Amino acid sequence: MLDELDTPCVVVDMDRLERNIAAMALAARRAGVRLRPHAKTHKIPEIARLQIAAGASGMTLAKLGEAEAFADAGLGDFFLAYPLVGETKARRLLALMERARVVVGVDSVEGAQSLASVVGPTGRRLDVRIEIDMGLRRTGVLPENAIDLARAIAPLRGLRLRGIFTHAGQAYAEPTADKVAAVGRDEGTVLVRCAEALRAAGFEIEDVSVGSTPTAAASMSIAGVTECRPGTYVFNDATQVGLGICQPEDCALTVLATVVSVPAADRVVLDAGSKTLSSDIQRPTGDAYGMVAGGRGRLVRLTEEHGVVAPAPGTTWHVGERVEVVPAHVCPVVNLHDRLVAVRGGRVEGELRVAARGRVA
Amino acid sequence: MLDELDTPCVVVDMDRLERNIAAMALAARRAGVRLRPHAKTHKIPEIARLQIAAGASGMTLAKLGEAEAFADAGLGDFFLAYPLVGETKARRLLALMERARVVVGVDSVEGAQSLASVVGPTGRRLDVRIEIDMGLRRTGVLPENAIDLARAIAPLRGLRLRGIFTHAGQAYAEPTADKVAAVGRDEGTVLVRCAEALRAAGFEIEDVSVGSTPTAAASMSIAGVTECRPGTYVFNDATQVGLGICQPEDCALTVLATVVSVPAADRVVLDAGSKTLSSDIQRPTGDAYGMVAGGRGRLVRLTEEHGVVAPAPGTTWHVGERVEVVPAHVCPVVNLHDRLVAVRGGRVEGELRVAARGRVA
Repeated sequence: MLDELDTPCVVVDMDRLERNIAAMALAARRAGVRLRPHAKTHKIPEIARLQIAAGASGMTLAKLGEAEAFADAGLGDFFLAYPLVGETKARRLLALMERARVVVGVDSVEGAQSLASVVGPTGRRLDVRIEIDMGLRRTGVLPENAIDLARAIAPLRGLRLRGIFTHAGQAYAEPTADKVAAVGRDEGTVLVRCAEALRAAGFEIEDVSVGSTPTAAASMSIAGVTECRPGTYVFNDATQVGLGICQPEDCALTVLATVVSVPAADRVVLDAGSKTLSSDIQRPTGDAYGMVAGGRGRLVRLTEEHGVVAPAPGTTWHVGERVEVVPAHVCPVVNLHDRLVAVRGGRVEGELRVAARGRVA
Repeated sequence: MLDELDTPCVVVDMDRLERNIAAMALAARRAGVRLRPHAKTHKIPEIARLQIAAGASGMTLAKLGEAEAFADAGLGDFFLAYPLVGETKARRLLALMERARVVVGVDSVEGAQSLASVVGPTGRRLDVRIEIDMGLRRTGVLPENAIDLARAIAPLRGLRLRGIFTHAGQAYAEPTADKVAAVGRDEGTVLVRCAEALRAAGFEIEDVSVGSTPTAAASMSIAGVTECRPGTYVFNDATQVGLGICQPEDCALTVLATVVSVPAADRVVLDAGSKTLSSDIQRPTGDAYGMVAGGRGRLVRLTEEHGVVAPAPGTTWHVGERVEVVPAHVCPVVNLHDRLVAVRGGRVEGELRVAARGRVA
């Protein structure tokens, strides 16, 4: 039973998880796009298998080490939505290509050349997608520069350009679900236009791939988008609830914590701090690291092993009681733990090993 | 050699580490206080052994699971500077006491009762220290309430009050080294006064224990302080440099990263994001997640696998080059990695396994 678990620990409600997986799979099927979930959220091959069983065409990952861990677990179709750079990475990539289908992101001539210099001489062919920056201002080329990069990649022996992709993470700065959806529609529209311009310039662009949980519904609806890569939807979190993307009862991952101190009327301290919950704050409000389930309070301050709750008015708390916390941002939470506890109907069903945790290289 | 390491990875300069360990040990010896370093910073038994060899009397840890991991590695003297609560924890504590000397923090009657209810019936005796809140406003009782808590603990069978402790983390909000030192002097002065009041009320207070790297020098200098528990000093970080507590050349831990994208003149993107560096920001300035060594730029924005650098004026960058990053806050960085690379004189010497990583319960 849940009350036998020591705290803090991370609990996954398997019914909610499966419901979230089914709902996104249905949305993608209805929109007629392939679903390639970003598995950086969970890093767990068993959950990837549930996603594939529901119709996902493969996994998206950020880092080569994550894909290697997933390949070790028998999975075999990856898109690395990240500008892979350098000869060391290219050699590891070649080894991974022996046992999996892999497509990688590129956003610079130098990065593409560093891959081609290793792949080309082997006679093998690496499929790449160009990353397009649609407003996040992180990596990626601006849409108007995509053709130049495509032209620079074309002569590189060993690489084949087969698509473009973007991630509209700027949606997390929007205050309402309507504005988030508008970002998603833009994401799809601009990316499809970019693909058309590339095709008009003579490039075969098979994959037009959008990303992110909050923009998924809107961006998938744009004709010409071929693939969507949401990640967070498997678990959801307080940020998704706050953005209006899901309801509190859609949050499949919570942290079980114990009240270790009630030192003053204005604060309650939990045994879950930033080494359990990460220091990521709720977006776009920037006002909480997590929500205590049942509307009892917000985590307003974290140190490494202490979570300070601002209690909701009228709530009472006592040392030793246990609470559930919905994290502000779920992805880095999972990355802090070796195992999550799988729960169904309030009973412990087993554990989920976070096989790709910490695979940052 | 360093340039054969794949990135991102965490590198420890062993010469600097040993110098930092020796300097703090010397400061404690000169001040005549016991040094009990907080090992949550490194979570590595080998480093604890270096600290003990230099004169530390034992380790401080936050969580029971960390102490269990250290005991597994053969270490045997722990103070858990954390309000341990509940019967499950008390049972684990009893098991740990079979193989180690353990003292734990308490800050509430309820917490103390929950430990005594398990320890008392065994006939064993658990040493506890009361946590005093000296301004951090996290856990702990206010100095004026220490006697009430001591009186409530006294009749609890199985517990023996043997000291008091505090952590002046509020020093991290101070703008200058002088003001940080003033917090440290207050920390020591108020805690010693609190100990004297408890003694006058009939309690034997053997341990008067202060904490934190930035306040260590000032708080150790106060007569009556018996122990100091700094943690960060083994590695140091950009926050300690910014506070004037150490110099850049005292930073023993860096993250080796690769430039994966130079998408615009105003930013450079590294392959180290919050899953490598954590999301902890530099204190008290709140303006960087890390510094690129050599003054080349500040990490001003992190997403999970991307670190965005604001390049210093006049610097040039190219895709594929490698840089060293000094993290804003080193403790959560270590907690993200299974192994650190030990380096001496620019050559790889071995690896350090982070044995207590993720032991949050």
